[in-house]
Amino acid sequence: MKFLNFYSGEKIHLGIKTEYGIIDIQNNDQKKNSLDHFPIEQVIRSWGEIRPFIEEILVNHSTAIPEETLHFAPAICHPEKILCVGLNYQNHIKESKMEIPKFPVIFSKFNNALAAHKEKITLPNSAQKYDYEAELVIVIGKEGKNIKREDALSYVFGYTIGNDLSARDLQMRTSQWLIGKSCDGFAPIGPYLVTADEINPDQLDICCEVNGEIRQQSNTKHMIFNCADIISYISQYMTLKPGDIIFTGTPQGVILGYPESEQVWLKSGDRIRISIENLGTLSNTIA
Amino acid sequence: MKFLNFYSGEKIHLGIKTEYGIIDIQNNDQKKNSLDHFPIEQVIRSWGEIRPFIEEILVNHSTAIPEETLHFAPAICHPEKILCVGLNYQNHIKESKMEIPKFPVIFSKFNNALAAHKEKITLPNSAQKYDYEAELVIVIGKEGKNIKREDALSYVFGYTIGNDLSARDLQMRTSQWLIGKSCDGFAPIGPYLVTADEINPDQLDICCEVNGEIRQQSNTKHMIFNCADIISYISQYMTLKPGDIIFTGTPQGVILGYPESEQVWLKSGDRIRISIENLGTLSNTIA
Repeated sequence: MKFLNFYSGEKIHLGIKTEYGIIDIQNNDQKKNSLDHFPIEQVIRSWGEIRPFIEEILVNHSTAIPEETLHFAPAICHPEKILCVGLNYQNHIKESKMEIPKFPVIFSKFNNALAAHKEKITLPNSAQKYDYEAELVIVIGKEGKNIKREDALSYVFGYTIGNDLSARDLQMRTSQWLIGKSCDGFAPIGPYLVTADEINPDQLDICCEVNGEIRQQSNTKHMIFNCADIISYISQYMTLKPGDIIFTGTPQGVILGYPESEQVWLKSGDRIRISIENLGTLSNTIA
Repeated sequence: MKFLNFYSGEKIHLGIKTEYGIIDIQNNDQKKNSLDHFPIEQVIRSWGEIRPFIEEILVNHSTAIPEETLHFAPAICHPEKILCVGLNYQNHIKESKMEIPKFPVIFSKFNNALAAHKEKITLPNSAQKYDYEAELVIVIGKEGKNIKREDALSYVFGYTIGNDLSARDLQMRTSQWLIGKSCDGFAPIGPYLVTADEINPDQLDICCEVNGEIRQQSNTKHMIFNCADIISYISQYMTLKPGDIIFTGTPQGVILGYPESEQVWLKSGDRIRISIENLGTLSNTIA
């Protein structure tokens, strides 16, 4: 199932992508099964009970919205945590001139960074070296601590696409990357949250284009720590909660990795499109 | 005014510390002024309108709860962000064998780390080098971006005490400190949230004792970046929101700073007491 959040006036509605268009599950014709006040976070927490209602709405709906008319909201709006893995593809480590980590390098963003598919991202004035990072994003489905590697994927609700936007000059200004990673709008996610039953996270083509030119092209099989490793590792220290999201690292091809003379940082008007197999395409423009 | 959160059964109530004891503002005798369903986060967001009601409750209350009977909750339970400043006291930088930073070193914790006054903290099994860090904590009062230094303190709702608990072996395992800083329970805050009108954040004695022995003793005047600097700096990149909290760094005297042969890391049964002038004493025991 492919969920998406979109604005209906001021409110965020939850929709499902179907072959007929988008079904608004909070405004459907079957009032008896209406799921008013069920944001995606609630659906994740109560998936077992809610799933049959949603399946009935999908069977009985009569109207669908054309996707191209939607004003998207972020695929998840209120995670407790936005975790990120750094240096998780060998060729990206090489281009970053870093060493292969023995343990996952974990950093973070905050909710102020969340942005939607098609949202225009405004860059702060006080930095210059703006860069993209195409990433597979895990959305946690149930609470867990000390999760074993072999059980880890059963804690996933689904997957989406993320752009781990980075201001390299801020990121490298001190030893800690946060300030260059969590500027407002620096975590676009979406367009869809695709349930885990449809995705093999260890085998997904991933691609990033800027203004139509391919910049990153890889496959998630090249991750050093795969999704199960990452979930298990983090859960040794932090209780993971439904709705938590984890950016899993980016492959080679970011601007930081170019020879210095060829580094043209992101600027106003640039269009970034990130595609991941079975997850769609996340597009954003720099304002 | 000194706010505090405490458990009344399963629910968190908001109280105010007075000379008579704690007034439960969600269960007072003046039903017409009852502030049911007003958690501290809501009080912060609507302070201007809510303050007169609270003042009336304080004048008209008839019962007060003895503080020693309370089961405290964290002084803030649902911040959007928990920001932390590293290396912000000169003598602590020296003991950490780090360089004086030109810009504030900003890192983070997540809400899974929040803990209350008197809460027992369980350490993960998978690390050894557990350390305390006594810190003044800022609680943001209103939304702001690109805040000028001279306006910064007007964005503060109040202050509390924090213990930036750290697993040094996890913190230093990779370049990014997060995993050693945001273990479950690693951000005790409280006991009170004291409104900004009662506090000069630039001139507060700060002290940390472990099992009755003084380990840290300093004054916030020794910060490299003071509260106004920190708020202004962060707001250049991230929109600060009401209820966001900022740990402002720790002075010298942490275990990490001891000669290696004298480093006895925190262990089960250790009692940590952090006192800051006008803010009270935050106590926690290692489980």
